[in-house]
Amino acid sequence: MTGEFEQSSSSETAPARRGRRRRGDGERATPNLFPQKPFRQPRHIYKPIEAVSADELEAIHDASMRVLEEIGIDFLHEEARQLLKSAGAEVKPGDDRVRMDRTMVAELIAKAPSEFTIRARNRAHDLEIGGDAISFSSVASAPNAVDRDQGRRPGNQQDYRNFLKLAQFFNIIHCVMGYPVEPVDIHASIRHLDCIADMIRLTDKVFHIYSLGQERNLDGLELTRIANGLTPEEFANTPCVTTVINTSSPLRLDTPMLQGLIEMAKAGQVSIVTPFTLAGAMAPVTIAGALTLQNAEALAGLAFAQIVRPGAPVIYGGFTSNVDMKSGAPAFGTPEYMKAAIVGGQLARRYRLPYRSSGVCAANTVDYQAALETTLSEWGAITGGGNIIKHAAGWLEGGLSAGFEKFITDIDLLQKIAEYLTPLDVSEEALALDAIRDVGPAGHFFGTEHTQARYKDAFYPPIVSDWRNYETWAEAGSPIAYDKANMLYKKALEAYEAPQLDPAIDEEIAAFVDRRKAEGGAPTDF
Amino acid sequence: MTGEFEQSSSSETAPARRGRRRRGDGERATPNLFPQKPFRQPRHIYKPIEAVSADELEAIHDASMRVLEEIGIDFLHEEARQLLKSAGAEVKPGDDRVRMDRTMVAELIAKAPSEFTIRARNRAHDLEIGGDAISFSSVASAPNAVDRDQGRRPGNQQDYRNFLKLAQFFNIIHCVMGYPVEPVDIHASIRHLDCIADMIRLTDKVFHIYSLGQERNLDGLELTRIANGLTPEEFANTPCVTTVINTSSPLRLDTPMLQGLIEMAKAGQVSIVTPFTLAGAMAPVTIAGALTLQNAEALAGLAFAQIVRPGAPVIYGGFTSNVDMKSGAPAFGTPEYMKAAIVGGQLARRYRLPYRSSGVCAANTVDYQAALETTLSEWGAITGGGNIIKHAAGWLEGGLSAGFEKFITDIDLLQKIAEYLTPLDVSEEALALDAIRDVGPAGHFFGTEHTQARYKDAFYPPIVSDWRNYETWAEAGSPIAYDKANMLYKKALEAYEAPQLDPAIDEEIAAFVDRRKAEGGAPTDF
Repeated sequence: MTGEFEQSSSSETAPARRGRRRRGDGERATPNLFPQKPFRQPRHIYKPIEAVSADELEAIHDASMRVLEEIGIDFLHEEARQLLKSAGAEVKPGDDRVRMDRTMVAELIAKAPSEFTIRARNRAHDLEIGGDAISFSSVASAPNAVDRDQGRRPGNQQDYRNFLKLAQFFNIIHCVMGYPVEPVDIHASIRHLDCIADMIRLTDKVFHIYSLGQERNLDGLELTRIANGLTPEEFANTPCVTTVINTSSPLRLDTPMLQGLIEMAKAGQVSIVTPFTLAGAMAPVTIAGALTLQNAEALAGLAFAQIVRPGAPVIYGGFTSNVDMKSGAPAFGTPEYMKAAIVGGQLARRYRLPYRSSGVCAANTVDYQAALETTLSEWGAITGGGNIIKHAAGWLEGGLSAGFEKFITDIDLLQKIAEYLTPLDVSEEALALDAIRDVGPAGHFFGTEHTQARYKDAFYPPIVSDWRNYETWAEAGSPIAYDKANMLYKKALEAYEAPQLDPAIDEEIAAFVDRRKAEGGAPTDF
Repeated sequence: MTGEFEQSSSSETAPARRGRRRRGDGERATPNLFPQKPFRQPRHIYKPIEAVSADELEAIHDASMRVLEEIGIDFLHEEARQLLKSAGAEVKPGDDRVRMDRTMVAELIAKAPSEFTIRARNRAHDLEIGGDAISFSSVASAPNAVDRDQGRRPGNQQDYRNFLKLAQFFNIIHCVMGYPVEPVDIHASIRHLDCIADMIRLTDKVFHIYSLGQERNLDGLELTRIANGLTPEEFANTPCVTTVINTSSPLRLDTPMLQGLIEMAKAGQVSIVTPFTLAGAMAPVTIAGALTLQNAEALAGLAFAQIVRPGAPVIYGGFTSNVDMKSGAPAFGTPEYMKAAIVGGQLARRYRLPYRSSGVCAANTVDYQAALETTLSEWGAITGGGNIIKHAAGWLEGGLSAGFEKFITDIDLLQKIAEYLTPLDVSEEALALDAIRDVGPAGHFFGTEHTQARYKDAFYPPIVSDWRNYETWAEAGSPIAYDKANMLYKKALEAYEAPQLDPAIDEEIAAFVDRRKAEGGAPTDF
């Protein structure tokens, strides 16, 4: 209810204006379009919802332990299997299958930290992970970009950079967990080099490297180290960067993912192990069954990371949803998705691990459906106790496109959620007994001192919602949220300012990228 | 996760279709557009969120008690003041102000039932009120109707009737708590007669009468009695109909509202006392202050009803929101609104009263904003433990219009919420260990027996969400949810069937309406 808006529009608009003199020519008349609060991670101030009882949670746990004990997981990586065998897993020569008993899994998982900090190159943007801390990340990994002006197109470097600028501009975006859109106009062998350099230069927030072969992980780790100005020894003990390890559901961890998990754990960096357990496709059609599979696969990967390096920072990722049974396509923000997100949080807390969830939808454009599905997935993520909410701004089409207008409408949703997660002020002054007494029956609170002292920051000022009355709105051409967001994303790009970067670091990054390009980049036969 | 869809679209669309013979000419090829489950009230199966601590809740309670004790409420009704005085309140001759001490309030509120049933003329549509039961009501009291075909227009009888048909058609609408739109083409003196007769004939769900003068209450009560086929004695002991008592915030209960409260309580019928405490306008600019005022006003009305008739069925209504500080217009679905809705639920539970909340927005049309604000207000209502969620389908523009397309998009939201509120099946079969074993690594669950036995009813089938892939959707003209909803509301009206009504009751209603019209209806000088 309180707190200063960093760039408040209120001063341009509120009651005090009535008596104000006209501005001189030199003053800007444009009200600030983007009132936003300073960078700050929202906190879970309300208890998470529990969608299953403690007994039911144990039933899911038990079933997933039986998956690991009786069925096992295929680890498509010889070194990984040897490490697992040494740690006590059942591994047979010539067989990818690895079986782990529940004691082994529990002991390994217990080594993972429940809470840690990820360092950003701008230390004001360090991320607290786990506990009651929440981080919102921009959309990641979309093959296409879309906006109204240019329509839908395969991702390219310019779109990629523009999304990074938006992620930097909005304080409610806490990190960039992956390329918002895949810039396919950059050759795959060197794409990671250019993309990571852009993430470092255009943002100063925590970012992400992909696990698409060992070389890319190693390049990404080195670029991150340089960006943070750390020695190799310091870097090895300072989480600075994340990767997502997706299992190949059902029951398989493939080679690049295991390479990534190994390199990230070795380097003391953060792996978010996220099975894509789509009920009815790669997972059982029942949500409880899909969660059983999710839990088995996530714990297999997370436990393995603790073999590579005990104490390696890891995050439990939940991404269980259901398919559209008509088409087999993934659906998001469904009632089933909400329940899975909430139970995913219960599971992560059971293992004392930070929890990653998502803000996602299946809509093709920025309409009622997009808002409904996105808000319901956030409902699941937030009430489920999510610590990192990925894809929280810009996601469309089940992840097949990143939308510029959607980015803006989601910013409004996220800012609202952050405000909802601030404690209600129940102080003597806020209870307002004196104001109620002074105003009395049939009065009005607008002109009271109690109101005048607070109105500027009393309420969250939305950036997309159009609160004009119907007549004024109709005269203005009946714009929908999509129209306003189209205007706003371009204004935000105009207002973007590149964060400062030490020129020496900038040069070192350029030199590294140039050298690795000259060496041919990374293999593309993955 | 389980349960039969009453009109399932799945059988037309799912995998089994592949091998099916072509339909004969006589068979309908149109898949059912409205898969819906049978009429059933959702239940609060998750614990409500608590946005303030027990101490903070007591602080709000204490402040509101001080409002009632020290400041008092104006009761603009001589008989009401006398009743209050007899019950122990401080009332001075010639002064509207009534002060009650907290012991008196607590003793009166304790007489109100925590749970009760409201009888519908179709007993299958009886409503459980309070406890873990939830009811969704259609939009009420909008002065305008809007759809894409005819635009926005003042409410008329045809629109009114069409909204009633939609409310009857969709099983997720449990009651009709007010005229969805005000039919201003019917003269105000007889409008209530025609409107109530329509509610009885076009729906068989629990409905609502307005407290706009004693005569209207009495007419409404008698029509309700006739519709339910009850003797006067039976009716006096059977809650069958609701009214909303809005306080004139701040601190006033006006004459027609008190007349309504008296007649409804005398008749043993249901009053929902709902202050419209808009922070920054009719209430303090702080949400805690607005809640203090809400609580004082609601309890004043609710306590008064218990003086009129101890045990009278009542509901605690919360409608606190904030204004748009630019225009003074009410805003809805804001972060402040969500907190107020949740704390409202904590207050209602403190007094062991059923709780009424709302599904509302300030949007002018069915866009991202409408979905965002509506879903956030439902988030507050549902996680706050709301028992009756009013305005849950069709509300637009802060209540200034009822939208036909919005009605449909909201139905999708409500059905999703109902599905979210069904328990997750965590049975041995649902955990799917055998299916996971059978499929094994790198397999697919689509063709398994476990999936085939369940896919038809495994997931909620949305009515608005368009899950076609981008290319197919673009070829179809890139329809947005609004477009689909425009088509669907007309299909729903076509599919509507009037509920059965005993011809003798129908005649009795007609006779009553004719007689009261001949008598001139009700006064219009309110």
